[in-house]
Amino acid sequence: MIKVAIVGGTGYTGAELLRLLAKHPHAQVEVITSRGEEGRAVAELFPNLRGHCDLKFTAPNLDTLLGCDLVFFATPHGVAQAMVPELIHGGARVVDLSADFRLRDTALWEKWYKQPHQSPALAQQTVYGLPETNRDKIRGAQLVACPGCYPTSVQLGFLPLLEHQLVDPRHLIANAASGVSGAGRQAKVDFLFAEVTDSFKAYGVQGHRHLPEIEQGLRDIQRGRGEPARVTFVPHLLPIGRGIHSTLYATLVDTSVDLQRLYEERYSDEPFVDVLPAGILPETRSVRGTNICRIAVSRPQDRDTAVILVAEDNLTKGASGQAIQNMNIMFGFTETAGLDMPAFL
Amino acid sequence: MIKVAIVGGTGYTGAELLRLLAKHPHAQVEVITSRGEEGRAVAELFPNLRGHCDLKFTAPNLDTLLGCDLVFFATPHGVAQAMVPELIHGGARVVDLSADFRLRDTALWEKWYKQPHQSPALAQQTVYGLPETNRDKIRGAQLVACPGCYPTSVQLGFLPLLEHQLVDPRHLIANAASGVSGAGRQAKVDFLFAEVTDSFKAYGVQGHRHLPEIEQGLRDIQRGRGEPARVTFVPHLLPIGRGIHSTLYATLVDTSVDLQRLYEERYSDEPFVDVLPAGILPETRSVRGTNICRIAVSRPQDRDTAVILVAEDNLTKGASGQAIQNMNIMFGFTETAGLDMPAFL
Amino acid sequence: MIKVAIVGGTGYTGAELLRLLAKHPHAQVEVITSRGEEGRAVAELFPNLRGHCDLKFTAPNLDTLLGCDLVFFATPHGVAQAMVPELIHGGARVVDLSADFRLRDTALWEKWYKQPHQSPALAQQTVYGLPETNRDKIRGAQLVACPGCYPTSVQLGFLPLLEHQLVDPRHLIANAASGVSGAGRQAKVDFLFAEVTDSFKAYGVQGHRHLPEIEQGLRDIQRGRGEPARVTFVPHLLPIGRGIHSTLYATLVDTSVDLQRLYEERYSDEPFVDVLPAGILPETRSVRGTNICRIAVSRPQDRDTAVILVAEDNLTKGASGQAIQNMNIMFGFTETAGLDMPAFL
Amino acid sequence: MIKVAIVGGTGYTGAELLRLLAKHPHAQVEVITSRGEEGRAVAELFPNLRGHCDLKFTAPNLDTLLGCDLVFFATPHGVAQAMVPELIHGGARVVDLSADFRLRDTALWEKWYKQPHQSPALAQQTVYGLPETNRDKIRGAQLVACPGCYPTSVQLGFLPLLEHQLVDPRHLIANAASGVSGAGRQAKVDFLFAEVTDSFKAYGVQGHRHLPEIEQGLRDIQRGRGEPARVTFVPHLLPIGRGIHSTLYATLVDTSVDLQRLYEERYSDEPFVDVLPAGILPETRSVRGTNICRIAVSRPQDRDTAVILVAEDNLTKGASGQAIQNMNIMFGFTETAGLDMPAFL
Repeated sequence: MIKVAIVGGTGYTGAELLRLLAKHPHAQVEVITSRGEEGRAVAELFPNLRGHCDLKFTAPNLDTLLGCDLVFFATPHGVAQAMVPELIHGGARVVDLSADFRLRDTALWEKWYKQPHQSPALAQQTVYGLPETNRDKIRGAQLVACPGCYPTSVQLGFLPLLEHQLVDPRHLIANAASGVSGAGRQAKVDFLFAEVTDSFKAYGVQGHRHLPEIEQGLRDIQRGRGEPARVTFVPHLLPIGRGIHSTLYATLVDTSVDLQRLYEERYSDEPFVDVLPAGILPETRSVRGTNICRIAVSRPQDRDTAVILVAEDNLTKGASGQAIQNMNIMFGFTETAGLDMPAFL
Repeated sequence: MIKVAIVGGTGYTGAELLRLLAKHPHAQVEVITSRGEEGRAVAELFPNLRGHCDLKFTAPNLDTLLGCDLVFFATPHGVAQAMVPELIHGGARVVDLSADFRLRDTALWEKWYKQPHQSPALAQQTVYGLPETNRDKIRGAQLVACPGCYPTSVQLGFLPLLEHQLVDPRHLIANAASGVSGAGRQAKVDFLFAEVTDSFKAYGVQGHRHLPEIEQGLRDIQRGRGEPARVTFVPHLLPIGRGIHSTLYATLVDTSVDLQRLYEERYSDEPFVDVLPAGILPETRSVRGTNICRIAVSRPQDRDTAVILVAEDNLTKGASGQAIQNMNIMFGFTETAGLDMPAFL
Repeated sequence: MIKVAIVGGTGYTGAELLRLLAKHPHAQVEVITSRGEEGRAVAELFPNLRGHCDLKFTAPNLDTLLGCDLVFFATPHGVAQAMVPELIHGGARVVDLSADFRLRDTALWEKWYKQPHQSPALAQQTVYGLPETNRDKIRGAQLVACPGCYPTSVQLGFLPLLEHQLVDPRHLIANAASGVSGAGRQAKVDFLFAEVTDSFKAYGVQGHRHLPEIEQGLRDIQRGRGEPARVTFVPHLLPIGRGIHSTLYATLVDTSVDLQRLYEERYSDEPFVDVLPAGILPETRSVRGTNICRIAVSRPQDRDTAVILVAEDNLTKGASGQAIQNMNIMFGFTETAGLDMPAFL
Repeated sequence: MIKVAIVGGTGYTGAELLRLLAKHPHAQVEVITSRGEEGRAVAELFPNLRGHCDLKFTAPNLDTLLGCDLVFFATPHGVAQAMVPELIHGGARVVDLSADFRLRDTALWEKWYKQPHQSPALAQQTVYGLPETNRDKIRGAQLVACPGCYPTSVQLGFLPLLEHQLVDPRHLIANAASGVSGAGRQAKVDFLFAEVTDSFKAYGVQGHRHLPEIEQGLRDIQRGRGEPARVTFVPHLLPIGRGIHSTLYATLVDTSVDLQRLYEERYSDEPFVDVLPAGILPETRSVRGTNICRIAVSRPQDRDTAVILVAEDNLTKGASGQAIQNMNIMFGFTETAGLDMPAFL
């Protein structure tokens, strides 16, 4: 049983870590921090955890965190990059769910996040925690940057096509839609129930912070072959609590490939990627609360455009579940430990 | 590991049994029947079960069912009463989730369900599967009638008050609201998304089939003391998938009682009843997908009306979870086996 | 064409006033104030009004307001009571949608709103704007307090029973449920989409600010006959944008009365109260965006409990629609002017 | 005041026609037909129309229909093509909201609808009722085929780009999402509330019946210039009642064009197309229940992909509102008559 800490436990990803870890066979949450809720019982803030979590929120303390085997950061961007260097120096292992260490190019990070990066050197060495592309590096990593919710689905969707250079990388299209929990548990009028329900809209069309992460990831997959991937990424806000659905479009340079087989083979050993049988399309509810990512691939009208559909839970495979998957890999646990329950419809 | 069968596996309660049993440590689903979907893979109908269930639907067969240690009926009313007698005769143990054996008074059953009852004798001997009132009888039972979703919440809510004769039993009010899955997975215009979303209404005001079950249960709790309980029961349809919330009202004959303490003590040993601290009110999402029933009790304005709030998941504590809780009791398993995961918010 | 002003135009009731007045045949919005949004185009904040409203928000100014024939207050409580006296003194007519002038007993107001009342004398003279009980006084009123959303539905529901002293007034029960817009357009975590969707809960059980208004209104209806009405009022939060549904319970002292006929006759001349045929129950979507209040009355199981169901739109008949209905009465317009469109399902 | 008839009045488009026509200044519904609901009061089926519609459903009768100035068909496909020829022969004017006369190429129709077309000659002469491209022909038309909901939004979105040959027409992408009312008011398990809520999915990826209509419309806009438009069209099912949002992608062959100005100029005289200011994005709720279509255009990251966002109400501009807009044009009424109310948020 390892001891884990959660820094920043009052948001949705913190709550999801607590839910999933409540039944984890090899990990126990020892510490959960929050400056704002210090002293308050976790189960008071998150009533679903009554009977499953006796912890109280505490103020973050370096020694306490260093006493744990693993520290999760579930904080807004800017926090981890200030605290992680000391933890790393003290020998802690860290999985950061925020955006702080996802981009190796910190100049790019600074452009998109509009603030100076405080640990550029560390950002260079961080392992990007997408197990499907980086499992070996994750195993030995001290600091893992857990991928963003949209980038997880977009990378998993395009991966087999880019690995085999089957599509024109210059005009990739990622049309994605997310449940509202993706916006975090912060009081903003835009995310009030009465503003979101019974409606649908795009946002961030001119530029969303996940775009550079997506393009970095896709270019890593390309490994220098061909034109660098360029993505038109349009996120949308869904009137649902959880779930991301990405509809990806790419122009095939070779239409003779059996796309169904390509995807099935690529992901045959992946415990959390489910390539659906031909003709079956994913829906977000079928992955609700689970770490599974379901994918369908097709070529409509036998033309030269490939369409890939990807469904994941933004808080699970898109955040906290993937963080635990990373933990399982880092500590040599069964990769599915604590993550193998079915969704409910 | 016991072998269980599910008769009628294409509805929401069947799907919920499959989801919960997929991870049960002591029970394995061997058979799931459906005449309409015979031969079809279960995971095709319920994509959340992909990777968790390899079964196909089969037509019901007596010998196959008798080969199992327990048979769940998740069928519309009228089916179990035709099939159960042979199973009981053959030595099977049965948990019936339908309404067929809930009322001991089969004349009353016939009045409300408008058809003849086919097994009145068996109905007399059936054990009513509400563990909080009937645990000992459930242990040795061969046939358990799993309570209805509304009756579970209403009985658990009024129980401490009636046990102690603290309220006027003649004017009990049960104002309840249920998610749409309570209507079953049947094609009816009334339950189309576009008919239900963004709306709210009462139904069945003149008489809902759960009323006689509620009154039977409450009178059992009274054990002949005082006027027999009479309930005005008004169910409402909520635009949510799962969840029941009951708001119960009763006139106190004694306002000196500490209601909070009464409820806490009555349910202190109950693994699936959570009496909330004073001032905390239950919400359905905090029990979503779990077998927990959360209860709050109060006396507004210090007047003589007690208000009890009860939240449960209609498909879990209100149906399939309670069925498994009954199974756990019948077979001597830990009562919470397979049922102890937290809800997600 | 009269000129009207709206003070506090950035909330849901302000937006609803603008929507309804956009097509009003006899009134034109000249001024809409907001300190926070001063200078901003209304249609930028409320994109549904693009093409229907060219106004910009301005800071409130006494002279400008006095230049209008009518001033609506759509402000949080506490604002109108500070500004209205000067307006009244200057000869303006005012419809206040806030709670400031609803209670004649300002000591009671201070107890529930936990702040001193700034215009107790004016509160005494304010006309309570429920046309179904107060039409004649509204006609000549200078200051009208528009009823709260819950109080409107509860009063209209109990009114015929109390007018005829048919029920025990000491144990009235009002179980009500409201869409989230009732909480206003303010940034609070509790009303985020992800907190409210797919869930249901009660709130304010120990005491909601609408309770004293409800009891004042019901006692006015009683006109001193019988014990003063006492209500147990439990509001619930619905995962819908708009709509209130109240389920009212009362013990009949006389079960021989034809309740259906009583209600039909009482409301036969009311343009905005629709008593449904026996057996038809109201749903909130059937009144969405309209000023109609639909009512059903029944006596389940022929027992002595009357059940009254009332559906209204909390922003229309429960606020802005009723405010315009009051305006129509005050200025001698057809009472339904600008308010006679059907809802859409 | 013209007399109009509605054939097939029990679905969502029929109900929406009734709602909109209830307040139309120049048209009166005289007849509404339904074989299944013959004799039933319309307001019983659609309670929102209580007080606004005194009609009963009748069986369709040729003479009665011929007695009207205009007949709307709001029937499933296959019905209008059987009945319309006689009506046309009898001199009636017809607006068909179904798919029967939308494709001039009836062989193509037969391929997609998998049944023989019964009036191929008439299909040739039908006027396609998209006022923004066809207003003059609509004016004198005897038979108008009202465009499909998706095709309306996709055509209006691509129109300015194709008129000016600014994009590669071979790889157009239309990623669209519709509320559930688009599936019609028919009892199917797939559209039950509990199947749709809190979820999102694509459907019809391999081929949706609106694809040939979309491509016919776009090619008409091209008028033979350039390669014929080919669209990858992926519809999605939104957990909302009403609303369509289309996100369109096209590769620009000329990036020097001011897209914002292009769209604003093209639609400056169109009463029901609202080009949003740069940076403002449409949301479906801002058009709910109205005939307005709101459009935003952008070029993310200043690259060569144009992104066009289009929001409409699938039942209004996508069906019944557009049908009435066509009627207004056909009869010389103000084009916005009966259609000029704002949406509510």
